[in-house]
Amino acid sequence: MPSITTEAQLAEFSLAPGFRTAATACGLKKSGALDLLMVWADEPCAAAGVFTTNRVQAAPVLVDRDALASGADRIRGVVANAGCANAVTGDRGMTDAKRMQAVAARAVHAKPEEMLVLSTGVIGVFLDMDKLERGIAALHSGDALRRAGDAARAICTTDTRAKVASVTVELSGGRVTIAGFAKGAGMIHPNMATMLSVITTDADIAPEALDRALRAAVSESFNRISVDGDMSTNDTVLILASGQVGGSAADEPAFTAALAAVCKSLARQIARDGEGATRLVELRVTGASTESQAHRVGDSIACSPLVKTAVHGNDPNWGRVLAAAGYSGEPIEPARVRLWFGDGDDVQLLDRGLPVEFDKARASALLQCDPAVIHLDLGLGDAHAIVWTCDFSAEYVHINADYTT
Amino acid sequence: MPSITTEAQLAEFSLAPGFRTAATACGLKKSGALDLLMVWADEPCAAAGVFTTNRVQAAPVLVDRDALASGADRIRGVVANAGCANAVTGDRGMTDAKRMQAVAARAVHAKPEEMLVLSTGVIGVFLDMDKLERGIAALHSGDALRRAGDAARAICTTDTRAKVASVTVELSGGRVTIAGFAKGAGMIHPNMATMLSVITTDADIAPEALDRALRAAVSESFNRISVDGDMSTNDTVLILASGQVGGSAADEPAFTAALAAVCKSLARQIARDGEGATRLVELRVTGASTESQAHRVGDSIACSPLVKTAVHGNDPNWGRVLAAAGYSGEPIEPARVRLWFGDGDDVQLLDRGLPVEFDKARASALLQCDPAVIHLDLGLGDAHAIVWTCDFSAEYVHINADYTT
Repeated sequence: MPSITTEAQLAEFSLAPGFRTAATACGLKKSGALDLLMVWADEPCAAAGVFTTNRVQAAPVLVDRDALASGADRIRGVVANAGCANAVTGDRGMTDAKRMQAVAARAVHAKPEEMLVLSTGVIGVFLDMDKLERGIAALHSGDALRRAGDAARAICTTDTRAKVASVTVELSGGRVTIAGFAKGAGMIHPNMATMLSVITTDADIAPEALDRALRAAVSESFNRISVDGDMSTNDTVLILASGQVGGSAADEPAFTAALAAVCKSLARQIARDGEGATRLVELRVTGASTESQAHRVGDSIACSPLVKTAVHGNDPNWGRVLAAAGYSGEPIEPARVRLWFGDGDDVQLLDRGLPVEFDKARASALLQCDPAVIHLDLGLGDAHAIVWTCDFSAEYVHINADYTT
Repeated sequence: MPSITTEAQLAEFSLAPGFRTAATACGLKKSGALDLLMVWADEPCAAAGVFTTNRVQAAPVLVDRDALASGADRIRGVVANAGCANAVTGDRGMTDAKRMQAVAARAVHAKPEEMLVLSTGVIGVFLDMDKLERGIAALHSGDALRRAGDAARAICTTDTRAKVASVTVELSGGRVTIAGFAKGAGMIHPNMATMLSVITTDADIAPEALDRALRAAVSESFNRISVDGDMSTNDTVLILASGQVGGSAADEPAFTAALAAVCKSLARQIARDGEGATRLVELRVTGASTESQAHRVGDSIACSPLVKTAVHGNDPNWGRVLAAAGYSGEPIEPARVRLWFGDGDDVQLLDRGLPVEFDKARASALLQCDPAVIHLDLGLGDAHAIVWTCDFSAEYVHINADYTT
């Protein structure tokens, strides 16, 4: 799947059968852009969520954990705002998140605990509940925007593009759709970085199986991206299953694979749209002793500002890749390592620890590709992992040096 | 001590009694700037070293480890080049580093294993041994520059300033000098980041005591700075003691404290001179359960591009500080955390987990100070640590996007 969503794709995008959306601008974003949305079904859904591992957890994260713990088999929808993260807001933040949940639930004739809540934006600021409540009312008026693409747009903050993905897969009970959207451009790091995603499906799947499938899909998608090494207080991926297409337990592997494809597409779009990024960077780590080793080495490279600025400058300064692998904490053996640039291992830079003479112009050209592919083989075993990041430009600094003010 | 070395200080700088220096430009730097230096004594010195923990270790690091393991009581000097790191250069790199050691040793009538070697610059490139050997000869000709400040300048790469520090301390045998220089501006991270330092003293101290003192001093200085989270393959801090001023075992605490002061000054200068930096950032973490917890939390904040860009933009977006503390891996309790900006805790932003109304203009002004001081109290215990970093500007990207080419 491509690493960006075009405007044409966004216009045509729809969620899985059984789900409706509404989006509006309620004034939480100073710009007046869309900043509030709901996704909901008319019947109770199975649902699952994966949340930030940050010790500082935003109020909506705590509210959703509770809702899923007590009733993952009867979730009706999700209400989400951008412009304010409702994080580090103490008891008042919890009261506000629960109020947001209750007001949104009432609008679709659901109970409060049947509604999930997402917030993204600045930390340490209270939600403007007047704007929010008027906004939720507007979502159910004639003025609301009804296209799923508008909901995908409303969740964005510093994103330059909305991010949607959709697949269909043939299961035992018929053809099933998995479709969702995500936001995230800064504060992105493996283990659920400042990103939110809402995924829907019409599959009939029990909450426990849905939870397993989501965790497996997230582990090889959203947990494999890094923009700046920062991990947010609000990260959440939610999936709701409307249950319109029946299935059986034997469908679980196929469902999980299809869900992973959607999550990977959204994750790559987030990395590609990293703040100030001009291209996606795909780090392929092979020859590792274990998958977790490959992941840690890839992660260390993906977090290196020196690697990311070198890619930005089309500068084949491959020593930085090796140095980052070396401080990953994994016991790599420098004398076994090989390194290539390019989707087809086009230019080799290092062979078993020794520099290889290479064509600098060609290596530089390969770093300009989107995605720029860097392949490091550790020479230790057969395990591998892919990690996605982006190049690091001066624009990242410009965006982040002046975000609240 | 101040966080920069002025030109006047550099002109007056000298190493400890008993040490000579020479510096020259041998052509390893394309710019033609000084790139080769020696520091040596006429008699054998006690010596100690602390080295990078990166799994990828440059040839000079391996050579120095060997030399110190076999003869830390009879080191004569250090030869150092900038412009080429001699890292990831395999057997040929080892041969070159040993040749550099031997040629430099011969020039001062020492044995090869009595000379230490440092290299810094681009990774994965072989040393130009012709230039290097001619350069070592030039160090001992009439053309060489003899001021210690020139040696401090010759070791620099992307540094905008040379970095020197000196203290004297009264010990039982008389007044002792500890004086040294350091380089480092990028690829800086705790646990010995792309930095080199050579420190000299005229104290009479056994190698084992010198090693203990150096490790203690490094742990609260060079291991407490971060510019970009990258850790180099070449990081080394060396100390040589000429033994001209006698002492006793009882002097060790005072000597260690004085050495720590020199190391802290050099470390702060490195952080202040971070690539593209406009100010030093001092992160004070108090109220921790353990010092290592305070250090890890400070380190996590110091490595956050979002925090560092916010400081650069004078943007009191304190939520980023809290988010970075939250993903440090330490079990902080958000509801106990307090946060202030300013050297005198001038503006409080967070009180036991809750946002405090604050004067944004004043908070912004405090971030413009050099150093900008951020104080986070975890409310868990009595341990504390200070970590130094710098702000993160677009200039960092410009410097690093085009370093080899």
